[in-house]
Amino acid sequence: MSMIPAAQYSIVLKLRLLNVPGVLGEVAAVIGEAGGNIYAFDAFEACGEYLEREIVVNCSNEENQTHIIEAVQKLEKVEVLDSWDRTFKLHEGGKIEVISATDVDDNDELSMAYTPGVARVCLAINEDESVADTHTIRKNTVAIVSDGTAVLGLGDIGPKAAMPVMEGKALLFKEFAGVDAFPLCIDTSSPQEVIETVERLAPSFGGVNLEDIAAPGAFEIEEALKKSLDIPVFHDDQHGTAVVALAALQNALKVVGKSIEDITVVMTGLGAAGIAVAKMMLQAGVGDFIGVDRQGVVYEGRDGLNTAKQWLAENSNTSLKKGSLSQVMAGADVFVGLSGPGVITVDDVKAMAADPIVFAMANPNPEIQPELVVDLVAVMATGRSDYPNQINNVLAFPGIFRGALDAYATDITENMKLAAAKAIAETVTDEQLAADFIIPSVFDKEVAVKVAEAVAQAAKDDGVSRQRG
Amino acid sequence: MSMIPAAQYSIVLKLRLLNVPGVLGEVAAVIGEAGGNIYAFDAFEACGEYLEREIVVNCSNEENQTHIIEAVQKLEKVEVLDSWDRTFKLHEGGKIEVISATDVDDNDELSMAYTPGVARVCLAINEDESVADTHTIRKNTVAIVSDGTAVLGLGDIGPKAAMPVMEGKALLFKEFAGVDAFPLCIDTSSPQEVIETVERLAPSFGGVNLEDIAAPGAFEIEEALKKSLDIPVFHDDQHGTAVVALAALQNALKVVGKSIEDITVVMTGLGAAGIAVAKMMLQAGVGDFIGVDRQGVVYEGRDGLNTAKQWLAENSNTSLKKGSLSQVMAGADVFVGLSGPGVITVDDVKAMAADPIVFAMANPNPEIQPELVVDLVAVMATGRSDYPNQINNVLAFPGIFRGALDAYATDITENMKLAAAKAIAETVTDEQLAADFIIPSVFDKEVAVKVAEAVAQAAKDDGVSRQRG
Repeated sequence: MSMIPAAQYSIVLKLRLLNVPGVLGEVAAVIGEAGGNIYAFDAFEACGEYLEREIVVNCSNEENQTHIIEAVQKLEKVEVLDSWDRTFKLHEGGKIEVISATDVDDNDELSMAYTPGVARVCLAINEDESVADTHTIRKNTVAIVSDGTAVLGLGDIGPKAAMPVMEGKALLFKEFAGVDAFPLCIDTSSPQEVIETVERLAPSFGGVNLEDIAAPGAFEIEEALKKSLDIPVFHDDQHGTAVVALAALQNALKVVGKSIEDITVVMTGLGAAGIAVAKMMLQAGVGDFIGVDRQGVVYEGRDGLNTAKQWLAENSNTSLKKGSLSQVMAGADVFVGLSGPGVITVDDVKAMAADPIVFAMANPNPEIQPELVVDLVAVMATGRSDYPNQINNVLAFPGIFRGALDAYATDITENMKLAAAKAIAETVTDEQLAADFIIPSVFDKEVAVKVAEAVAQAAKDDGVSRQRG
Repeated sequence: MSMIPAAQYSIVLKLRLLNVPGVLGEVAAVIGEAGGNIYAFDAFEACGEYLEREIVVNCSNEENQTHIIEAVQKLEKVEVLDSWDRTFKLHEGGKIEVISATDVDDNDELSMAYTPGVARVCLAINEDESVADTHTIRKNTVAIVSDGTAVLGLGDIGPKAAMPVMEGKALLFKEFAGVDAFPLCIDTSSPQEVIETVERLAPSFGGVNLEDIAAPGAFEIEEALKKSLDIPVFHDDQHGTAVVALAALQNALKVVGKSIEDITVVMTGLGAAGIAVAKMMLQAGVGDFIGVDRQGVVYEGRDGLNTAKQWLAENSNTSLKKGSLSQVMAGADVFVGLSGPGVITVDDVKAMAADPIVFAMANPNPEIQPELVVDLVAVMATGRSDYPNQINNVLAFPGIFRGALDAYATDITENMKLAAAKAIAETVTDEQLAADFIIPSVFDKEVAVKVAEAVAQAAKDDGVSRQRG
């Protein structure tokens, strides 16, 4: 349970205060004692002997919210008129909206956007399917598809409960890259049924972003759809993470002055995302890559390897290292974690090669708390927004789809992903580059623009663009 | 091929004119001679010895567009800088957009709308599914589902070519009732596959509008989904048409002073929409209803009846009339056509009872041209916007779904449809009511509001509302 007051648990207290000096101070004191953090004072209204105010308070969890409200209710000169949870309030009615992109204020406009004029566009598509790529929402619209089997860190919570995440993703698509995205949560946990459902819906979309689908189903779904559809299909949990991690690695190596082919990377967390990170780093030329699961180091011939780990065994750890995580951490240049809290120790970091790079990406609690190794590491990155160097997919997926849609791409190729990583890395200028600034802020809107350009170019170079004229 | 210049075939001519008197007149004359109708002069810009202007010209078909452009190109003092088709231009990139309904400008906002705060809403839904009805887009979002098998009058043009119609529908949903609607064109023509696809997608939607699906598949799909889903399912081609036709009938009867139980209605066009109109009119109490197909009058015991017509035979034409359309038109009070152009004659109308009511709803060309019978009929309605009394579904479906969503309805019941028809009819006041004003304008935004109120109330009365508190 979180103990740090944060916006995600913030509440609004609507209060009526007796209009005498010191009352607001009492409120503030009581909130502070109860563990709340006053974030803002809103809407001020004086009504004779009373004042009405709205106070935004960051709380540390739901119990704490109740505790704070009750504490304020006990004050004699204060009445709590109303209170609400800001996160839930924000979700009321959903987080996205479908609006019309054209006016229909009179019969003439209606006759072009709808019947009878619309029939002309229908017939044009019927004659030449490619008209649908330019004259329907396919031009700019991505389906965000999930079956709700692996939502955030919450596991298999089902398609309805997955909706808020997919809606959130849709709004990020729009905010960061102008991509129209629509959440489709599919009520099945059969990969085959997800595949056929998405195949049937392909006429309405220009791309498919797979999200929060459990492995190994996720691999099966992505592979099948990439084969059967002529629009880009991208499992963000895998490749989005991989793209941003590679970008971070490229800049971290600049900071420490090492070459990618000389380094040894040790990684924990060999799920869907982990394997994708491994593949991209290997493709980018990492010298030695050693994957570690709960049984220890992955090597060719070890037992207990699923298909993905078998692939990793065959394509990495060429010197056939064996043993425990701690053993391979000794002398490693880079640690990449996508596993869980506390997986590595301070001693593990001490045993790494000079200028160690640590990406502790487990969410919400990293593989090692940054505070513990701040003086030992050369570069540290996490998945969190409250530490420097946040490795966040939002740096990748909006721009990747923007570029793929702009290029009318039929696929997302390896080169397109590598180009995206390079573009993200390059948005950090030489002047900006520092141990605590290897990746741009998630709010840097320039990133998606650069990523889109690079991805669209790579699509054309790879011959997967249908772009006309 | 249309010979009347209309907006659906309008073009924009971007011209550079020699800046001397009379040139614009020459342009206008040439356009007129070529059969074009100048609709507007736009953007005026003077550049020394030249003027640049954009002229909007309504044309009568695509050949006529080319003819007009070529005629203007031949003028010596005029250069055609550019020209485009307005209907196609308006469709570029699609007609709807998905936007975010909340801000994500900083880490705090991001932490509420997305990770980590979004997990709280996901968990709340996981614990209590009804939270999804209020805190996701399910609250306000309808899927517009088609398989593209019966698009407008164009037939089975496929799912991609159906997209412009479904996008148009989505924008009407938003414009007229604030409903977020998203087009899903399904690449299959198996009703069973449409059913299972929609069932799997139900977690993302608060309602399903079926559209342009061929009979009898459409009946099968609607029936199955109404049974399996706990959200409203509505086949607009059937019930939207039926609701508006019934509203029109109710007001037309007021104009001629007849009671619904005393009248005989003759109908042609016994497809999906026709049968739905028949059912609603029978339910509303029409005295006698006689359906006619290409073989003649439908009666119990006739051969060549499909399931729907068999139902009609058993539930109408109680005096077992037989024979041709013309034979039953004699003495009929109302004719309703959903068939094709020229199906009834002037003599048919002359043979009707006093004060005949004719709804010739075939699109684009009605069962009889209104001009031919203007002096014979008491009330005439069509599906067209260029005659009085346009029977258009847009008067029904936005308000029906608005009401169903507002009431958290699990179904669209017969009473909800009857309530919608009554609400539409009642938006025409006694003062407004006239032979040429039996139904409100499609642009009257009050209609959807009234329909929504009536439908929501009927949902509650019928016990199909899940509304809490």
